[in-house]
Amino acid sequence: MSILVVGSVAFDTLATPYGKREKILGGSATYFSLAASYFTKVRVVAVVGDDFAAEHEGVMKARGVDTTGIERAAGKTFHWGGEYGDNVNEAKTKFTDLNVFQNFRPQIPQAYGDTEYLFLANIDPKLQLEVRRQMPRVKMTGGDTMNLWINNSRPQLIETLKKVDILLINDGEAKLLASDTSLARAARKVLAMGPRALVIKHGEYGATIFFPDGVHPFRAPALPIEEVQDPTGAGDSFAGGFMGYIASQGKLDRPVLTRAMFYGSVMGSFAVERFGTERLQQLTKDEIQQRFDLFRSLTHLD
Amino acid sequence: MSILVVGSVAFDTLATPYGKREKILGGSATYFSLAASYFTKVRVVAVVGDDFAAEHEGVMKARGVDTTGIERAAGKTFHWGGEYGDNVNEAKTKFTDLNVFQNFRPQIPQAYGDTEYLFLANIDPKLQLEVRRQMPRVKMTGGDTMNLWINNSRPQLIETLKKVDILLINDGEAKLLASDTSLARAARKVLAMGPRALVIKHGEYGATIFFPDGVHPFRAPALPIEEVQDPTGAGDSFAGGFMGYIASQGKLDRPVLTRAMFYGSVMGSFAVERFGTERLQQLTKDEIQQRFDLFRSLTHLD
Repeated sequence: MSILVVGSVAFDTLATPYGKREKILGGSATYFSLAASYFTKVRVVAVVGDDFAAEHEGVMKARGVDTTGIERAAGKTFHWGGEYGDNVNEAKTKFTDLNVFQNFRPQIPQAYGDTEYLFLANIDPKLQLEVRRQMPRVKMTGGDTMNLWINNSRPQLIETLKKVDILLINDGEAKLLASDTSLARAARKVLAMGPRALVIKHGEYGATIFFPDGVHPFRAPALPIEEVQDPTGAGDSFAGGFMGYIASQGKLDRPVLTRAMFYGSVMGSFAVERFGTERLQQLTKDEIQQRFDLFRSLTHLD
Repeated sequence: MSILVVGSVAFDTLATPYGKREKILGGSATYFSLAASYFTKVRVVAVVGDDFAAEHEGVMKARGVDTTGIERAAGKTFHWGGEYGDNVNEAKTKFTDLNVFQNFRPQIPQAYGDTEYLFLANIDPKLQLEVRRQMPRVKMTGGDTMNLWINNSRPQLIETLKKVDILLINDGEAKLLASDTSLARAARKVLAMGPRALVIKHGEYGATIFFPDGVHPFRAPALPIEEVQDPTGAGDSFAGGFMGYIASQGKLDRPVLTRAMFYGSVMGSFAVERFGTERLQQLTKDEIQQRFDLFRSLTHLD
């Protein structure tokens, strides 16, 4: 079944210990779409500027992503500049030129009205809620957020969380949102805010999905990678693999959710192997399945 | 088969967000022994002072641990004072009174000469090597170390590592030892120093065992625990469960090593639930097996 992602399509200018890139294709919706495209039909709602060329959109189209919902506004595309040092878990932002993204008001194309799975990537929780309300037929909603909204738009975020079925955030965000330094306690508190499940991403240590009391969590590994060329988009790629797999299965039981955790981790591990979306553009289903099996052998007793 | 641990038997005075304790039984060899005692016959070599009472030794004896090798020296027992804040992963040392431990020269009792499994807990690598040389019949040696030795006794440590089959250290120690910020690369570099396998403990994220090139690593989870009452001894308890299980199996294939990782994680998770050695003194085999099964359900796809 199809999945709709609402988020950013952007340009990234970045430096890592492995090299530099100028204005390459990035953005949460881009990484999400490409990762999810290996599992199901993907639709995007985002905004870009005059500088967004056919070749950029072509990257998504080549993966079969429906880009009808990408609005073109007068001005420049969202442009992020950042740098990673030896610690690939920490990005140092050099600049954030929001450009046309600053006035983004997501409009859902009529043709997307029958979408059953929705992912609200990291945008203003007020917009996330507006989108959710425009999609009454959605069966399941995933969402992301960040420290900015947790700190500055908490009441709005709390409202939005009531409409999110599965929230995907990282350790620091979970602790900040719950105002608690224990990850396990933070998970319980966030779940009390509304989501039916909470995925906490631990970077190189993998990710854990927490459920309300009485149901065991589940932890998927990440691959110990020697060369993380560019960590940008790892979390969005995780979300793409996770949500894309769920949408492909059309149900939400434990076997589906635990496999979705594995596929999320798999897609995140591919994303960081090359700069930008390079690796996600050219995967095969075989490669994905092989890595899935590798992750199984990394964690499963014989 | 029996396992010998050489390390510290000590008193700890500590404070955590859950309470305080004065001069309670601690030390690497103590935690290791208690954890390993649920799997195999354990022997200890350590040194204590005049203030070490029969009741303290009784804690180990009650678990069937052979304490013949605990030497009594004139003076006081090693006494560590520390504090944990909200971040249970960081201990703040208040004082380290080495006392009789300062002049510890491990002597292996004759009756221990047939020991087949050896664990060199975190002591001066020079002493670790001396012990290893006193034990020619040992089939397999595990070892631990810390930043102090990596920084100040590197040449000696490098010599010792050539005689250690499996090294168990944490993330920071692995990166420091390898002078590398990537965990995967650090693992490869440490393995090149001699050990046949390397266990890197990630605290609340579990632990990974790395093997030389061509063999997949394996990752065991840790339990997301809401109440870590006292993190002291978690690593030594992991080592006790890990090595104790290996000694009980008498072989070193992948099924044994991966299960040993689980048992290590299980014993570490019990240790932190109560202050000091409290929880490790009163476990049942059923409780251990139940937690093992829980860890399996935390990580295994249905």
